[in-house]
Amino acid sequence: MNGNEFGRLFRLTTYGESHGEAMGCTVSGVPAGVELDEERIQRDLDRRKPGQSMITTSRGEPDEVTINSGIQDGYTTGTPVGMVIQNKDARSGKYEPFVTAPRPSHGDYTYSAKFGTRNWGGGGRSSARETVNWVAAGAIAKAVLDQSEYDVEIKAHVNQIGDIVAPEVTFEEMLEHSEENEVRCAHPETAERMRDLIDEYQQAGDSIGGAIEFEARGVPRGLGAPRFDAFPARLGQAMMSIPATTAFEFGLGRDAREVAGIDRNEDWEFDDGESHPETVSEEGDPVPVGNDHGGLQGGITTGEPIYGEVTWHAPTSIPKEQTTVDWETGEEKQVQVVGRHDPVLPPRAVPVVEAMLYCTVLDFMLLGGRINPDRLDGQVGEYDTEYHAERPDHEE
Amino acid sequence: MNGNEFGRLFRLTTYGESHGEAMGCTVSGVPAGVELDEERIQRDLDRRKPGQSMITTSRGEPDEVTINSGIQDGYTTGTPVGMVIQNKDARSGKYEPFVTAPRPSHGDYTYSAKFGTRNWGGGGRSSARETVNWVAAGAIAKAVLDQSEYDVEIKAHVNQIGDIVAPEVTFEEMLEHSEENEVRCAHPETAERMRDLIDEYQQAGDSIGGAIEFEARGVPRGLGAPRFDAFPARLGQAMMSIPATTAFEFGLGRDAREVAGIDRNEDWEFDDGESHPETVSEEGDPVPVGNDHGGLQGGITTGEPIYGEVTWHAPTSIPKEQTTVDWETGEEKQVQVVGRHDPVLPPRAVPVVEAMLYCTVLDFMLLGGRINPDRLDGQVGEYDTEYHAERPDHEE
Amino acid sequence: MNGNEFGRLFRLTTYGESHGEAMGCTVSGVPAGVELDEERIQRDLDRRKPGQSMITTSRGEPDEVTINSGIQDGYTTGTPVGMVIQNKDARSGKYEPFVTAPRPSHGDYTYSAKFGTRNWGGGGRSSARETVNWVAAGAIAKAVLDQSEYDVEIKAHVNQIGDIVAPEVTFEEMLEHSEENEVRCAHPETAERMRDLIDEYQQAGDSIGGAIEFEARGVPRGLGAPRFDAFPARLGQAMMSIPATTAFEFGLGRDAREVAGIDRNEDWEFDDGESHPETVSEEGDPVPVGNDHGGLQGGITTGEPIYGEVTWHAPTSIPKEQTTVDWETGEEKQVQVVGRHDPVLPPRAVPVVEAMLYCTVLDFMLLGGRINPDRLDGQVGEYDTEYHAERPDHEE
Amino acid sequence: MNGNEFGRLFRLTTYGESHGEAMGCTVSGVPAGVELDEERIQRDLDRRKPGQSMITTSRGEPDEVTINSGIQDGYTTGTPVGMVIQNKDARSGKYEPFVTAPRPSHGDYTYSAKFGTRNWGGGGRSSARETVNWVAAGAIAKAVLDQSEYDVEIKAHVNQIGDIVAPEVTFEEMLEHSEENEVRCAHPETAERMRDLIDEYQQAGDSIGGAIEFEARGVPRGLGAPRFDAFPARLGQAMMSIPATTAFEFGLGRDAREVAGIDRNEDWEFDDGESHPETVSEEGDPVPVGNDHGGLQGGITTGEPIYGEVTWHAPTSIPKEQTTVDWETGEEKQVQVVGRHDPVLPPRAVPVVEAMLYCTVLDFMLLGGRINPDRLDGQVGEYDTEYHAERPDHEE
Repeated sequence: MNGNEFGRLFRLTTYGESHGEAMGCTVSGVPAGVELDEERIQRDLDRRKPGQSMITTSRGEPDEVTINSGIQDGYTTGTPVGMVIQNKDARSGKYEPFVTAPRPSHGDYTYSAKFGTRNWGGGGRSSARETVNWVAAGAIAKAVLDQSEYDVEIKAHVNQIGDIVAPEVTFEEMLEHSEENEVRCAHPETAERMRDLIDEYQQAGDSIGGAIEFEARGVPRGLGAPRFDAFPARLGQAMMSIPATTAFEFGLGRDAREVAGIDRNEDWEFDDGESHPETVSEEGDPVPVGNDHGGLQGGITTGEPIYGEVTWHAPTSIPKEQTTVDWETGEEKQVQVVGRHDPVLPPRAVPVVEAMLYCTVLDFMLLGGRINPDRLDGQVGEYDTEYHAERPDHEE
Repeated sequence: MNGNEFGRLFRLTTYGESHGEAMGCTVSGVPAGVELDEERIQRDLDRRKPGQSMITTSRGEPDEVTINSGIQDGYTTGTPVGMVIQNKDARSGKYEPFVTAPRPSHGDYTYSAKFGTRNWGGGGRSSARETVNWVAAGAIAKAVLDQSEYDVEIKAHVNQIGDIVAPEVTFEEMLEHSEENEVRCAHPETAERMRDLIDEYQQAGDSIGGAIEFEARGVPRGLGAPRFDAFPARLGQAMMSIPATTAFEFGLGRDAREVAGIDRNEDWEFDDGESHPETVSEEGDPVPVGNDHGGLQGGITTGEPIYGEVTWHAPTSIPKEQTTVDWETGEEKQVQVVGRHDPVLPPRAVPVVEAMLYCTVLDFMLLGGRINPDRLDGQVGEYDTEYHAERPDHEE
Repeated sequence: MNGNEFGRLFRLTTYGESHGEAMGCTVSGVPAGVELDEERIQRDLDRRKPGQSMITTSRGEPDEVTINSGIQDGYTTGTPVGMVIQNKDARSGKYEPFVTAPRPSHGDYTYSAKFGTRNWGGGGRSSARETVNWVAAGAIAKAVLDQSEYDVEIKAHVNQIGDIVAPEVTFEEMLEHSEENEVRCAHPETAERMRDLIDEYQQAGDSIGGAIEFEARGVPRGLGAPRFDAFPARLGQAMMSIPATTAFEFGLGRDAREVAGIDRNEDWEFDDGESHPETVSEEGDPVPVGNDHGGLQGGITTGEPIYGEVTWHAPTSIPKEQTTVDWETGEEKQVQVVGRHDPVLPPRAVPVVEAMLYCTVLDFMLLGGRINPDRLDGQVGEYDTEYHAERPDHEE
Repeated sequence: MNGNEFGRLFRLTTYGESHGEAMGCTVSGVPAGVELDEERIQRDLDRRKPGQSMITTSRGEPDEVTINSGIQDGYTTGTPVGMVIQNKDARSGKYEPFVTAPRPSHGDYTYSAKFGTRNWGGGGRSSARETVNWVAAGAIAKAVLDQSEYDVEIKAHVNQIGDIVAPEVTFEEMLEHSEENEVRCAHPETAERMRDLIDEYQQAGDSIGGAIEFEARGVPRGLGAPRFDAFPARLGQAMMSIPATTAFEFGLGRDAREVAGIDRNEDWEFDDGESHPETVSEEGDPVPVGNDHGGLQGGITTGEPIYGEVTWHAPTSIPKEQTTVDWETGEEKQVQVVGRHDPVLPPRAVPVVEAMLYCTVLDFMLLGGRINPDRLDGQVGEYDTEYHAERPDHEE
């Protein structure tokens, strides 16, 4: 409603501005009995963290998460998990020139138009710093899925920066290589070329756009509600919520417009137990012979891998000289957005895409009755004589 | 939640299957005092109707809407508008071969996987027939906006079929030409070539994909809630809800990935009262010098035109021979999906895209306090001595 | 949001005014595989129907329901069930004096204050006629529960009219006697005295208040989300939505204010398999020794019967002379609300209370993972080779 | 959905357990431009705080709130306000006997039944400690209303403890006296008798129930959506969410069942500008001659004061010896719930009731377009040249 909540049964509520006191994320709908601690969440936060490499902003945020609730003896209790991440290295001074003079192509003007004011330090709530909350929530969704009876795997990598396009890679290559380089491109050689291109733009005081390819394996068949809560509709909402995204595609995506029905349509065959290792189908199940449909037919999962792409425009904060107007003085002025900014967004957005995908998948699994919303072990409605006693063993 | 509702304050709830008794749509959140009758809605339904040309299915549905509630003496009363559209020309017989043998790339298998059953006639609830409800709701949203103090204009046209791409057209050309031809392409000459291409595929027993470009003018600044309810996020959800869509883009869309920051960024200048007729800005307002941002910055409207594109894959129902498997008999079989089907989707989807855009814009205008959710005239909280008496004059 | 929706996973959306074309109800979240037809729903509608006895309005509404969607071959398909009930006997003429002169203690003034207009015939959307939609939805919830593996039983009866209070009755007596008399009081002798009292008020051109006691048995333990979606909070919302209700209580209700902790607190014992037949507990389970808590502790079900009371004020439509003012003419006037009105509300509200209880219980059972939201048989995510074939056998 | 959210446009999301790290509350939908700091919130938290008198628990919580976001230079920015209140004085040790042996009439058993586990220290999330979040949110709602153009006043007081009933008091007496004594009863003499009664129960190791009467003045006419979001329905949900409540009433409440229509119905007259100072009506407006309807007709506000009562059962934590069973050992045992507990709940619940009333009223005012959800000053959609500059003057 107010834009700070995502998901239905697995539901995150966030707050925080780039230069405010702290970022915060409340996650409701985490089933009880999931092993969870701050370390698990920290791992993903570190992947999104500023300052992790030369191609990311040098802002010095440790991004340390504190869990305030929802956990006992290392396990979730079914009540909401409240998390806080302090902002430690905010330097608002250099944003002062922009209080009444909007930075080109930023959200400065629109936030002021909406609210009549805005938290101008570091972009306030429009800053991508907000996504630290999403990654924290995604880490919880991942923990739930990893400990469930399902074998869901999710991975993303940067498949394009400027005009450099990575060749197609397998899911296994994504898992293996995408975290090996700063660009998070799973094709090492392309990653190097992307890295060079980024350097070039950065040195020119400019920035460049790019794209991420994502894939989810092991998502059960039959998820996604007809029509407005179709899986692609909710996934589209998730991805288009990420700051600076301008396109969402799945399956053949934009290219589907040029393809004939007979070429895109996929026959059905019975799974022979060998030819479809990438799907959830088992021997004897009907299975489509291809996956141009991206794992989704009629807005519902087929059990095939769900894949697609998201596009980012170039970061708008660039040191190059630009022109703006000051609505207080009524004068035009030349500005340079100097600060600590990323020259390209996808490399740090990889964990964000993965997080939103984890949240979306888990939400649909809870809604579709695949995982019990109250308890991971599914024995709902029974007091449990062993439950508390068992916990210590789990921890060993 | 269950996929049958869209919008927050302006909210539609729908039901209906392709071959069920009737389609139904309940629209909550229509302000009181809006002139509305069945005729206004019918006009848009007729644009979506099957059988309107040779390139649409020949199913003979009159698509006549009945309004059951929410209206008195030709004006809305603020209570929900309930509408019903009977299904009159359902012929389920030819779908019988597919009850347990899914049509290639349809929603047959996924619906059965989800529910263990499905309404198999005509695709049931996965059928695009459902969009008749959306167009009815969109017509109401349009009526509200048209009678408000705002001057919102929305139009879409088909800008690509297969590999035939329309040259760029102005908004005025879209308004003038897109309804003149069966393809609903605003560039008449291209429309003819598209028409020929569609014929070619249709005669070959095949189908083809395509795309729609949309634009909304006059949408006020400052609409869109930060983050998960960002304007592009909700618009993305709306568009990706439309059956057979595979990509959503706004502004530079997918191309943004290749553009440098300095090229995409747009300086700010003061509106001189002449150079920006297409925006909502007035003389002296800050205004961006271009609109590569597609009317949305930081997820919030800038007052510039909102534009983007949606991609459709080729219709999956084609007479060409294909292979499927019958999960009851355990046998493979050759099938032909003969019936009354569209060889291409965008021409009939133009009113659907416009409807979802109208609904999305109005919803954000209600949420942002631009239009009062109770009464169009905005004098909330006062009984109105003149209101009933005045009505007849309005009608003259 | 707009007041026309109830429930989360089991969700009804309604429309309709007393003298509009028709009432309508869309029920989303009905699991697939539930045997359902119009007759099942009609049975409950007939219990709420006007004109069923001398103490109800003589308006001649057949209240015949038409199901437009969501059902195939007598079973639900998982898609929304759309229902319509035509209004056949609306006589608006006698409401004309009240268009700009509000009836005492009705919703005339408040609806006009909110919307600046209102559908004045028969009270428009503020009419209790709306509850026909709720009873239709409740009948569906009952069908789902009856065909589930759970043994949920729900019953209500009129336990007070004016100052006549029924003695306490057992649940079995409620089941046996409450439908035997026009008052729907499960204590036959009291029912007669209530009937006499109602006659007295009716003949005097007056009306009288009353109350309903409700009970639900067999509701599983552990339902109800902490805090704002506590079971009593959602049940309270449900009951206070019913027109003309002024109080909601559960367990000791209002009397709890006078009771000491040691008297209200209930010890725990182990169920011996015999002493607690009214609960869901089994031999060896911890079970409270009493049920002053009304089946709810910490906002969550204990497995004991859930019971409580709802109070109705006297109907506001009475033939006795009263005074109002006309905001158009600026004059006071004497009015009599003659028409076809109930002299007392609880007797016809019994099926409404039961319906809202059914809807609330089922919604919590879906949310708590007790019944799968997609399929009653629970085998989600698998296409079902036998499902369609089996159906005919079910029907025999 | 998951029970941790309340409200639609003014929306709180909470987390926290009695003995967890911290309590947290995110408030979305606070319009920009409202003067707000921690001190304003602290004032109300101090009224709810433990240890404030001899009749409240001696737990030593400072209940200091930290605001993490949503505020700049002392004014709200329209983005969510995130708050954290640390738990400092949790002593879980004495709860250990109850881990697998539920305290009588507590939520121990039901939480374990739902989640298979629970945070057993201090009652975990079922503890009334959670209401510290609600009071913090209510303080924000109060700040918004106080700074709006409306003159809304809300007050509650304890009108019954055990069998001691306070005589009727005026709204002015509630404002003047209810905070003067520990019991928060606005009738000083009765407050003393209540105090004696509470002492008596406390000394006996027992506890006692009670009730609160609330009233809201100045709430505009026309608020409340028809049917399921009727004002009394949402208010009922709010009040029945408060721990240990068992009844909600408004207007005549439970007594309405015994009153004849002609006695409860209220004629309409024109406001003469003098006789109705307690309502929002102005000279010449239609106004009801009484207020047995409690400010709500047809589920919508009339502009008359909204009033009602809420009942609390006696606190369940009492030192008297009681019996429970241990589901791990299978044995019965005698227990005493010694700890730091309140002997009666309403005195500390007064600020909680007021908070929920503030939240409910503001939410309806935003939904009804009375206060703009984006900006308190209502000039939505315009960037504001003066807005930032003006702020300091406001502060003087």
